[in-house]
Amino acid sequence: MLRADEDDAMKIPEILLIESEHKPGSLARILTVIGEAGLVVEHLVVVRREQGRTVWEITIDMDEAADHSVFDRIDALPNARVIGKSDRVFNRHRGGKIRTISRQEIGSQQILRDLYTPGVARVCLAIQENPELAWDYTNIGNTVAIVTDGSAILGLGNIGAVPGLPVMEGKAALFASLAGISGVPILVDSRDPQTIIDTVVAIAPSFGAIQLEDIGAPNCFQVESELTARLDRPVLHDDQHGTAVVALAAVRNAGRISGQLLSKSLVGQVGLGAAGYGIARLLLARGVERILGADLDPAAVSRFEKLGGEASNLQQIMAEAEIVIATTGVRGLIKPEMVRPGQVILALTNPDPEIEPALARKAGAVFAADGKSINNVLGFPGLFRGALDARAKRFTDAMLLAAAEAIADTAAEKDLVPDALDPAVHLAVAAAVKAAAEA
Amino acid sequence: MLRADEDDAMKIPEILLIESEHKPGSLARILTVIGEAGLVVEHLVVVRREQGRTVWEITIDMDEAADHSVFDRIDALPNARVIGKSDRVFNRHRGGKIRTISRQEIGSQQILRDLYTPGVARVCLAIQENPELAWDYTNIGNTVAIVTDGSAILGLGNIGAVPGLPVMEGKAALFASLAGISGVPILVDSRDPQTIIDTVVAIAPSFGAIQLEDIGAPNCFQVESELTARLDRPVLHDDQHGTAVVALAAVRNAGRISGQLLSKSLVGQVGLGAAGYGIARLLLARGVERILGADLDPAAVSRFEKLGGEASNLQQIMAEAEIVIATTGVRGLIKPEMVRPGQVILALTNPDPEIEPALARKAGAVFAADGKSINNVLGFPGLFRGALDARAKRFTDAMLLAAAEAIADTAAEKDLVPDALDPAVHLAVAAAVKAAAEA
Repeated sequence: MLRADEDDAMKIPEILLIESEHKPGSLARILTVIGEAGLVVEHLVVVRREQGRTVWEITIDMDEAADHSVFDRIDALPNARVIGKSDRVFNRHRGGKIRTISRQEIGSQQILRDLYTPGVARVCLAIQENPELAWDYTNIGNTVAIVTDGSAILGLGNIGAVPGLPVMEGKAALFASLAGISGVPILVDSRDPQTIIDTVVAIAPSFGAIQLEDIGAPNCFQVESELTARLDRPVLHDDQHGTAVVALAAVRNAGRISGQLLSKSLVGQVGLGAAGYGIARLLLARGVERILGADLDPAAVSRFEKLGGEASNLQQIMAEAEIVIATTGVRGLIKPEMVRPGQVILALTNPDPEIEPALARKAGAVFAADGKSINNVLGFPGLFRGALDARAKRFTDAMLLAAAEAIADTAAEKDLVPDALDPAVHLAVAAAVKAAAEA
Repeated sequence: MLRADEDDAMKIPEILLIESEHKPGSLARILTVIGEAGLVVEHLVVVRREQGRTVWEITIDMDEAADHSVFDRIDALPNARVIGKSDRVFNRHRGGKIRTISRQEIGSQQILRDLYTPGVARVCLAIQENPELAWDYTNIGNTVAIVTDGSAILGLGNIGAVPGLPVMEGKAALFASLAGISGVPILVDSRDPQTIIDTVVAIAPSFGAIQLEDIGAPNCFQVESELTARLDRPVLHDDQHGTAVVALAAVRNAGRISGQLLSKSLVGQVGLGAAGYGIARLLLARGVERILGADLDPAAVSRFEKLGGEASNLQQIMAEAEIVIATTGVRGLIKPEMVRPGQVILALTNPDPEIEPALARKAGAVFAADGKSINNVLGFPGLFRGALDARAKRFTDAMLLAAAEAIADTAAEKDLVPDALDPAVHLAVAAAVKAAAEA
């Protein structure tokens, strides 16, 4: 049973440790109780089997409103009991997710004297003479600042910069793991866009590029445009353009598989915040001729109209658009009965989409996906790797469009997008972005 | 032959590759030519031996004024020739000295979902509820910003922030290697102290502590004091206090070995910039009763007098002080004939001291050392490790004094200071600083 109400509380995974006896039907009964409570099993593994008993680790999505009596009802089963909750997520965060390391072991005076004083002075003087050499002899050309003010963290909203740090470290871990990039979380303790801009300008020489992350609309637009104008290095607001690149890849592949021409398709966007705006902008740059858009905030609609979009509403979009892209932050906003058969539906709000893809497909959608697969982790590592490798001064639409094509091209025949953990994706994106930057 | 002139050009190591025949006296003749050119051999290794020939890698300190005809004169020897210069220092810098890594391999969707969305949301919410948890579940309590404006890089001076980056990466590599700390170079593109302060305050939530590095006097004083007042985390200007801690350790051990009471010794300081001021401040905090000080800058002398020092001059200091500490930036300032027999002389200007220790000892000094051994790399890794481990809000004199004692205690019986690459030093400093912070 899928939940699809309008409650916008956040579902986060609860990892239960449940012990059952080795008897036929034990596990089935446990899962039946969970299913009857309206909860979806996200993951299930055996932790250990011994002395006629098995301990299962069962991951389910729960929120405050979820039926918490499920624990008692499992305990009431004849052969099972809840023995605890796993702290796996917290354990994986303990001590932080990233580290700065020395690339060389400093095990002798000679190495110390080469890497530090006095040897380092030669390198300083060489860079003073030719600043471009910083890209050869320091890590600067491999370093991206991940800047947030904490105003729009994930689906959690305005929780503050330090509470958002685990997300920034997650980005840095992905940068390192997928693209060999050194990501540096920078938490800016201000909600004033001019302070954010001036602060980033002041520290920008430390980094090869700047990723803006989870900064809310409308500040994100001012921050990005002014930083792009003032700095001679690439600046990208990932929530806008990273998401846009991946969404474009998905709709391009939907068109490829269904034989529809993207530029002639009627696109409808529900939600015109940072992500929605970025998607609209890139689709128009890609040649899409008509985009309908809806948002509760008149300022967002006005920004969208200035781009060339047409103001609309949820009902019209669901009734008319061939491709629906939702970025509202509202779980369950799209009801199955609204889906027009044959529609492509990307419901991108994380972690809980506007409509579960399975439900959308059941209601007639030809393709449906959510933010778990249409995720900007497909885009940002290669986007920055390519920009850094090209020593680009800024991100251009040509670079973003090339990234989208590369992502689309690496998807399997019938998939909208590839697996984000496939290294080939990021290599392909980086190469395409670099080539576009150098063209 | 030692050079001891007042030329303040910078000596930096030149690494020559010299081929010689396997004949008695070949190497001796090469070294004789180098010696006759007034150049000191810093290091010598065999690169390869084959077919009756040996390739030597010979490191010598050279500057612009050095006798460059030495290359031709080596080539003119019957059995030797210069076959090239080694780029070992540059090779060791290629691609930079540090990296950010992910502490866990992100090899499965489960790990991705735990470290990033959706799992990360649980950790964000926990930190929002209790900000102290950031010290448990992020890398913040292990992260130090290494902040410079590039105004006083090593002995090179005001060369700019980006040319100073190799020094900041060197610090970060040492932090990682010696104390498991993630150092983050932050280059601030401004010489206005208020801009530096406001910038660091704005990004301070990203870091567990702040190291100020190679910021010139007098700005360094204002920047440090205002940051210490405004931030609830440790701030340390390494050029002042890191150097002071190591210098104090050295003079404490000089007193221990010679049986002199430090507090009753007459100390003379030549040079009262950032390092000199920091040393004077810490020696007074340690109970030293009289310190003479000299500097060409009247503002520096006035600052020193406000601390409780006595204005003096080079001649008086050399004639009267039992302990001389020089931090002038002027190579060869102290002539052998100025040395008073029995003096302790720390000539700390890097890379070229006010007087070479061997020369000072020959002139009668009972102890003499330079900035290569009395180096703040002995101090800063453990100082920050201890402060972070204690979750201290600031550095106190008690912490600095405890660090100096710990460094002094780990030196061998007859040495002023221990080997900076001995891990025991940094463990001892960290433990002492933590204990002092928690006392």
